[in-house]
Amino acid sequence: MKTHTLLMPLDMHLHLRDGIMLENVAPLTAYSFSGAIVMPNLVPPVTTLEDVTAYKERIMAAVPNDFFEPYMTLFYKNYDKKFLASIVDDVTAIKLYPAGITTNSEGGVSSFDIQEMRETLEAMSTLGIPLCVHGETDGFVMDREAEFMTIYEALATNFPELKIIMEHITTKAAVDMLDKFDNLYATITVHHLLLILDDVVGGMMMPHNFCKPIAKRPEDLDALLSVALEAHPKVMFGSDSAPHPREKKESCGCAAGVFTAPIALQLLCEIFEQYDKLDNLQDFVSDNAQRIYGICPEFKEVTLEKRPFVVPESYSGVVPMYAGNTINWAIETVD
Amino acid sequence: MKTHTLLMPLDMHLHLRDGIMLENVAPLTAYSFSGAIVMPNLVPPVTTLEDVTAYKERIMAAVPNDFFEPYMTLFYKNYDKKFLASIVDDVTAIKLYPAGITTNSEGGVSSFDIQEMRETLEAMSTLGIPLCVHGETDGFVMDREAEFMTIYEALATNFPELKIIMEHITTKAAVDMLDKFDNLYATITVHHLLLILDDVVGGMMMPHNFCKPIAKRPEDLDALLSVALEAHPKVMFGSDSAPHPREKKESCGCAAGVFTAPIALQLLCEIFEQYDKLDNLQDFVSDNAQRIYGICPEFKEVTLEKRPFVVPESYSGVVPMYAGNTINWAIETVD
Repeated sequence: MKTHTLLMPLDMHLHLRDGIMLENVAPLTAYSFSGAIVMPNLVPPVTTLEDVTAYKERIMAAVPNDFFEPYMTLFYKNYDKKFLASIVDDVTAIKLYPAGITTNSEGGVSSFDIQEMRETLEAMSTLGIPLCVHGETDGFVMDREAEFMTIYEALATNFPELKIIMEHITTKAAVDMLDKFDNLYATITVHHLLLILDDVVGGMMMPHNFCKPIAKRPEDLDALLSVALEAHPKVMFGSDSAPHPREKKESCGCAAGVFTAPIALQLLCEIFEQYDKLDNLQDFVSDNAQRIYGICPEFKEVTLEKRPFVVPESYSGVVPMYAGNTINWAIETVD
Repeated sequence: MKTHTLLMPLDMHLHLRDGIMLENVAPLTAYSFSGAIVMPNLVPPVTTLEDVTAYKERIMAAVPNDFFEPYMTLFYKNYDKKFLASIVDDVTAIKLYPAGITTNSEGGVSSFDIQEMRETLEAMSTLGIPLCVHGETDGFVMDREAEFMTIYEALATNFPELKIIMEHITTKAAVDMLDKFDNLYATITVHHLLLILDDVVGGMMMPHNFCKPIAKRPEDLDALLSVALEAHPKVMFGSDSAPHPREKKESCGCAAGVFTAPIALQLLCEIFEQYDKLDNLQDFVSDNAQRIYGICPEFKEVTLEKRPFVVPESYSGVVPMYAGNTINWAIETVD
């Protein structure tokens, strides 16, 4: 039986939510990942040191062992330098949402005024705190990410020492930015390596494939695959796994988000093997992130096996991507 | 109170289904329209004179009065000339579906081989039977209609005497064809004069706005509005109103189709008034179709009034577009 071993897998973009949902989903990630960048878009968002500390405690209480590190983030606002200096040891990154652009982002940034953001972003540069960005405008749904490139360009050129992570990129336009600016990086989800808009609304309407940014065109998928499969040194895996209760997905007005946490490594093995690039998966799923973020996760060794695995219909009421379908890799052991 | 009167409104593209659904929805169209082109994509599709006659009888049994004419269509196959001559008095048009492209289209055309289609299409030209076409390829969902333009071009140039109706057009590409070929015409739905892809998947996922062809880009909407509002002489209103039971729309794997029959005239008044083009609505909703198809519907006079109208949450279990929302025109009298 063909196997593949991954060391210290990292999920550099994860939604764990809170309360019962947190208790249900956090163990699924903690089982197979050494650590994850945890998004701060709770209600209300995570904006203080107390919020960060308390949320981290709730996460640790929800995971069954100590071999998982939640890398905590703050919800971007214009913070002053003193505050940022006080939280630098407790926060791995700060996540910027344009206001209203996705789930629980109402308190985000409504205008990208570089001067207003300067104190915060210069302090982050100095302190070495990366800026994670949900890069979408409020334009036409297929153009939102491409339209945001001018904002990335303004941020990258005004703050050349700031590490800027273009989160969950979905377009060739974003891929093309990677080699234009030294301080731009990106995460890519597993579902954006598999889906195009056809998988959302091309046949029947598929709510469990519906997310923001929405899956794009075939040529965008090709561009994402090209940098992921080569494990481009500025690209990291970030699942953007986003759990919603089944009733919020399978209803009129379905919420955005694809739930992939428990099947992400299996699907990544399948994709990378399909293109004969399994040797690059370690970089994509851990080593690039360790280098970019300067983090040293605790040891974890995950061995996957090539054998049929039927994706469960639900994990505690949350429907995963490919629910009920058979995929070709399964997790065999975690040490 | 502002009012607007329409004479003999016609819906040149309508799904009435069969059985209980037919009984529920047919009266809604018959109430305010003088006639409608009735689509033949039943299961199994309408392909014989017996099918046409029996379906027409079921429709007439479902409508409460005699002032509604169902213009019957056949499901396109390669029919011989003799058969076509035998049905010319009973069939208003023949509807062509690419195989598998939309609801109940599995028996459609799988390759557009002009030579194989020649006998049928030449006979239709001679007999004056229009060809109604669902013009989509099986390509990327946003490109399917634009990609089909080469097939329209081949049909239009090979059969210059055939009236070809591009059904429910959604793109600038299709609009641009109208003035290129004398024998190309089009229907436009009311929902494609209101929706873009943003209204389907730009915010939450909205199944009741999900249809095929899918709503497109803002510039496509502008192109559709330009020819509809001017009542371009080759453009007709066709609702493509497509009822599905609520449970087939509000579920994982939602079926394609927007149900507009009972609110179409109200919405058209609202749109045409908004652009100060109410004077052109009569042409768009009846006169152009009468001239293009050579039909003389029975007299019906529908007077609409500008006043708030709350769209019902459902009509016999079928959820209409804008359910629960207030629109600005209502039907006042039908004589």
